[in-house]
Amino acid sequence: MKPFLDKDFLLHTSAAQRLYHEFAAPMPIIDYHNHLPPQQIAEDHNFENLTQVWLYGDHYKWRAMRTHGVSEDYCTGSASDWEKFEKWAETVPYTLRNPLYHWTHLELQRYFGISDLLNAKTAKAVYEKASEMLRQPEYSVRNLLRKMNVQVVCTTDDPTDNLEYHQQMAKDSNLGLKVYPAYRPDKAMAVEDPAAFNTWTDKLSSVSGVQISNYDDFLTALKNRHDFFAQNNCRLSDHGLEHIYAEVYTEQEIKRIFSKVRSGEALDLEETLKIKSALLHEFALWDHEKGWVQQFHLGALRNNNSRAMRRLGPDTGWDSIGDFKQGEFLARFLDRLDNENKLAKTILYNLNPADNELMATMVGNFNDGSVAGKVQFGSAWWFLDQKDGMEKQLNALSNMGMLSHFVGMLTDSRSFLSYPRHEYFRRTICNLFGHEIENGELPDEMEWIGEVIRDISYRNAAGFFGFQN
Amino acid sequence: MKPFLDKDFLLHTSAAQRLYHEFAAPMPIIDYHNHLPPQQIAEDHNFENLTQVWLYGDHYKWRAMRTHGVSEDYCTGSASDWEKFEKWAETVPYTLRNPLYHWTHLELQRYFGISDLLNAKTAKAVYEKASEMLRQPEYSVRNLLRKMNVQVVCTTDDPTDNLEYHQQMAKDSNLGLKVYPAYRPDKAMAVEDPAAFNTWTDKLSSVSGVQISNYDDFLTALKNRHDFFAQNNCRLSDHGLEHIYAEVYTEQEIKRIFSKVRSGEALDLEETLKIKSALLHEFALWDHEKGWVQQFHLGALRNNNSRAMRRLGPDTGWDSIGDFKQGEFLARFLDRLDNENKLAKTILYNLNPADNELMATMVGNFNDGSVAGKVQFGSAWWFLDQKDGMEKQLNALSNMGMLSHFVGMLTDSRSFLSYPRHEYFRRTICNLFGHEIENGELPDEMEWIGEVIRDISYRNAAGFFGFQN
Amino acid sequence: MKPFLDKDFLLHTSAAQRLYHEFAAPMPIIDYHNHLPPQQIAEDHNFENLTQVWLYGDHYKWRAMRTHGVSEDYCTGSASDWEKFEKWAETVPYTLRNPLYHWTHLELQRYFGISDLLNAKTAKAVYEKASEMLRQPEYSVRNLLRKMNVQVVCTTDDPTDNLEYHQQMAKDSNLGLKVYPAYRPDKAMAVEDPAAFNTWTDKLSSVSGVQISNYDDFLTALKNRHDFFAQNNCRLSDHGLEHIYAEVYTEQEIKRIFSKVRSGEALDLEETLKIKSALLHEFALWDHEKGWVQQFHLGALRNNNSRAMRRLGPDTGWDSIGDFKQGEFLARFLDRLDNENKLAKTILYNLNPADNELMATMVGNFNDGSVAGKVQFGSAWWFLDQKDGMEKQLNALSNMGMLSHFVGMLTDSRSFLSYPRHEYFRRTICNLFGHEIENGELPDEMEWIGEVIRDISYRNAAGFFGFQN
Repeated sequence: MKPFLDKDFLLHTSAAQRLYHEFAAPMPIIDYHNHLPPQQIAEDHNFENLTQVWLYGDHYKWRAMRTHGVSEDYCTGSASDWEKFEKWAETVPYTLRNPLYHWTHLELQRYFGISDLLNAKTAKAVYEKASEMLRQPEYSVRNLLRKMNVQVVCTTDDPTDNLEYHQQMAKDSNLGLKVYPAYRPDKAMAVEDPAAFNTWTDKLSSVSGVQISNYDDFLTALKNRHDFFAQNNCRLSDHGLEHIYAEVYTEQEIKRIFSKVRSGEALDLEETLKIKSALLHEFALWDHEKGWVQQFHLGALRNNNSRAMRRLGPDTGWDSIGDFKQGEFLARFLDRLDNENKLAKTILYNLNPADNELMATMVGNFNDGSVAGKVQFGSAWWFLDQKDGMEKQLNALSNMGMLSHFVGMLTDSRSFLSYPRHEYFRRTICNLFGHEIENGELPDEMEWIGEVIRDISYRNAAGFFGFQN
Repeated sequence: MKPFLDKDFLLHTSAAQRLYHEFAAPMPIIDYHNHLPPQQIAEDHNFENLTQVWLYGDHYKWRAMRTHGVSEDYCTGSASDWEKFEKWAETVPYTLRNPLYHWTHLELQRYFGISDLLNAKTAKAVYEKASEMLRQPEYSVRNLLRKMNVQVVCTTDDPTDNLEYHQQMAKDSNLGLKVYPAYRPDKAMAVEDPAAFNTWTDKLSSVSGVQISNYDDFLTALKNRHDFFAQNNCRLSDHGLEHIYAEVYTEQEIKRIFSKVRSGEALDLEETLKIKSALLHEFALWDHEKGWVQQFHLGALRNNNSRAMRRLGPDTGWDSIGDFKQGEFLARFLDRLDNENKLAKTILYNLNPADNELMATMVGNFNDGSVAGKVQFGSAWWFLDQKDGMEKQLNALSNMGMLSHFVGMLTDSRSFLSYPRHEYFRRTICNLFGHEIENGELPDEMEWIGEVIRDISYRNAAGFFGFQN
Repeated sequence: MKPFLDKDFLLHTSAAQRLYHEFAAPMPIIDYHNHLPPQQIAEDHNFENLTQVWLYGDHYKWRAMRTHGVSEDYCTGSASDWEKFEKWAETVPYTLRNPLYHWTHLELQRYFGISDLLNAKTAKAVYEKASEMLRQPEYSVRNLLRKMNVQVVCTTDDPTDNLEYHQQMAKDSNLGLKVYPAYRPDKAMAVEDPAAFNTWTDKLSSVSGVQISNYDDFLTALKNRHDFFAQNNCRLSDHGLEHIYAEVYTEQEIKRIFSKVRSGEALDLEETLKIKSALLHEFALWDHEKGWVQQFHLGALRNNNSRAMRRLGPDTGWDSIGDFKQGEFLARFLDRLDNENKLAKTILYNLNPADNELMATMVGNFNDGSVAGKVQFGSAWWFLDQKDGMEKQLNALSNMGMLSHFVGMLTDSRSFLSYPRHEYFRRTICNLFGHEIENGELPDEMEWIGEVIRDISYRNAAGFFGFQN
């Protein structure tokens, strides 16, 4: 019996162990997509206790607690930090076979050297030890990132963001890592709610200095922010969408539709889809122009619980996997860009694993020989960010594309303690290769396969995003 | 080489063996959803031979026989019981890797102590030995259930059923197990065929004593039966649907639509979807009011072969897995109830495994902390009721929800010999846990994991349905 | 550590090894669906070098090269044969875990006795050795087929094809294998482009000698070709479709629609779907009448890259997996035929593995006991033609149908070097059975299971297609 979470965790062959320890583990981390708050990095924040860093923003944990029958008070509510932690600790033993169980114990080991299993009995000691450490300067957020050998962090930012913390960090010679913004204009496409859209558009107008009365103004303001992001070292955009929008439209139509929503009037479904299609195409052109990488996170069915939405707002654990049609719109959108030779480097992430093979083959339609791995099938995301989900993504990509050119892992996390997920990913991939080396499905070419492991762990991303400069 | 179907069948690690034999095997069975005929339990029926108990109602076996090239005479037709058995025995060796192969030999072992492989050569001896036993009092249907340690059986009943056999059993002090009805109002929603719908509605009128001339009457009569079922210890409803219906409608519309169909007129698609949506919502309100559990079996594409439908009627082996859109309607339906704080405990079963992850995450949207595991992703169902299908359901549930709160297995069967499916399920789940304990992906905490195994095998269901009272 | 690609490649238990070497390997090959050029077999062509046989028509390899960043010049362009090969050899090490990696090295071993790993360093030697061999008479295409023990080859042919090479081969007493045409009338349904459709229809008119001015003429001409194919030993039809077409239509409508497109006018979507539905039904009736097997390849999203389409035409590596709705149309199409008792033997292939279970259960709806395995869930196809894809298809078929009646593998290839794919398939299936024999999930009945292996490898296909005559 192999001990739980030992040094060879997830590594079930000696080939896998060698690949991980010798080739994967030493590579630095490029975390090219996450939701870390730039302010906390800029200010090198210290958390007061484990609840603050672990439970304040983690909808994965809240969701588990609610399913365990824990009331909202202890998730997002008014209970004390310790009370919240205690409820979480009681929940943990029930998360067996969920990635939370692995993440929790990996994070306790890697950051705090705590090897105890977390449960009601160990809660107090774990809380006190970890919280005490978190209050030390060596546990500031920058030091948490350094401890994990993080070299690059890309946050996710609204076009109206003034990027002040990014600017502050760009000038900070002590930073010791690179922190870049990413352009995520989801709110520019959120025309379903004209009031919220116009409030946001007013903010965009103010921050860009562009009076926005028509569609051209709107594009000018957004492009102005795109340029501003570029000046602040942004190299990626990101879009969270149910599916790609690729309706046929005329410029005239879009102008009319924009004026309608700008005047506060609700759009019908066709108008909504058309303006989203138009905007998405524009963003893609700008990304190509600047040599950015565009990311599309597809397939989430969000905000399903309206009671919770009213009380807690979005991104608090009430989203799920949707079953949207993906193929034809995706092909049309990418083809239109490719046809004008204006397709930027692209990463497609899908949330429904039933679409894995569709995605893995779709990217191949636009890999035209100009750049290795130009269009990528992105890493297993959100609900799929666990061993089974990763293996399915890696297997689909391997069988239908080229795993060797994969840009690999990202945390997509709001938490500074999520970096062991890169380790988790690397262990999983080394285990897949190691298994096939041992059973004769791959040759025992450790040096070569080790290079591939290094590429996927770090070097592919460094090259793809241009971070090696 | 491990012998076929020995005591450690499906248990491939010593941890799995210990979990199964020590924790899972001793637990009684709660079979909270099946299609057993209450009359045969009430009368403590003895079957005359193996064909009657095994082949008379089993569309799984018929389907295999037809695929093997056996004519309908030997499936549902006029061949003698022995002739039918002989054809089935000839078919069995060709069912290798199908669950029928495992079920067949498990059932022969567990009920009759027969370890021979069934085939053309062994057919006669097996038939005679098992049939002889079946004619003994120790092989009455109640004794078949007792032999398997069955504690609770929930049948599936039409609202027009008078539940006479359930009433008879409720008074029977020798019963030794609990047999409850479940409310399945599929025919109340079957408005596609106005003639059949009205015949059924007339029957409902007669059994409820409510004259049904308008929609309110219809609801009154159905509610009357819901109350009657509750008085007869019903604690679950069940619905067999292609997908959830959650159209927007007004009460006025529904009244008009009901009158139209009640007058024998065909409804158009929109009307059909609206009235189904309205009824489904009403049923859900009643289930919540009574504290019942509501079950939804989603995704079957039924009655695909019209030649067979004409000759044999429904549920005779001509159904398959559909590819219906599930996500948005499901979210809308559950949210409407949750929003009024009227969402009953719920189990979602899906037939297309491509929707596993959608379902596993959908339930999380409505687990609000009020009850542990309030909304459940139900056990692998029908075509998925086999090792691979179970493992996929268990893995999706584990990775995206909380396996530890799962209410577990049910037979969904028409046969008194199907109870080894609970054993099959328990072995499969113990094997999953055992494998991960052995390879260090779970801690070697047998006492704790054993408790979880006990919960999933029995105690979660006892608590969830309120059967421990 | 097991050596790469040794004699027990993919065979991970001794039971698997015995099943493969003793039962599967000796069976001849029936390749009942491929895209080999009949002319090259008729003329017993010798290739000049490895590039010609390996790279000239292989969009799998081109796609990998493009993803590796190789420019089109070296794929389909003007680079020399050696230059193309060199780029392919450089790409190969990066195809780890893709079936190309296995195929490449299997083909080098089986045809040329080359066990080196192909890469930039070994490229020259491999190219020279294999090319030298290919120029020898023992490496003519017929000898390549004989080396693999190929007994039957069915090509894929347009109804307007004059089948001259098939006729030549039918008279060739030295052929030593059977080469049959298959009727693939995709162009008869390609009404989306009226100009191309009419050009093709003119060609059909000319080759059939039927003046085509209305729908009846069109059917007459197509039926004439169907008869002609039958006279030339055709026993299968094939259809490449996004999904099955099964709209409701009247004969009058179809006549009008045909006249419209025949006059060069574009059809709307409804008209397009109706005429496709009508034609597909007619073809199916003819197939039934003649006792042919009809094949449907469903689910490809084709020609996604219009730049490439303009330069290179179709089937050059720009296709992917679609997410079309499959269930209801498929059921309606098959039921309409079955209902008239005119359903031919049928094979359904799907490209999106999310539909595996739908397909595996759909076939069961029309297996009526008349012929064993009458409606088949076809082998994993195209992007799915790899170990993982095969295992998923085999497992779905096993769990939801009857693997023992499966007609098994086909290459679907344009290359004379693809025949080790049959070996690959047989190894994979033996490995599945062997694994379950070793772990006690199947009985250790090697003689019986060996018979099943022989059936799936060869005898089922021989019987199903009538090739044993």
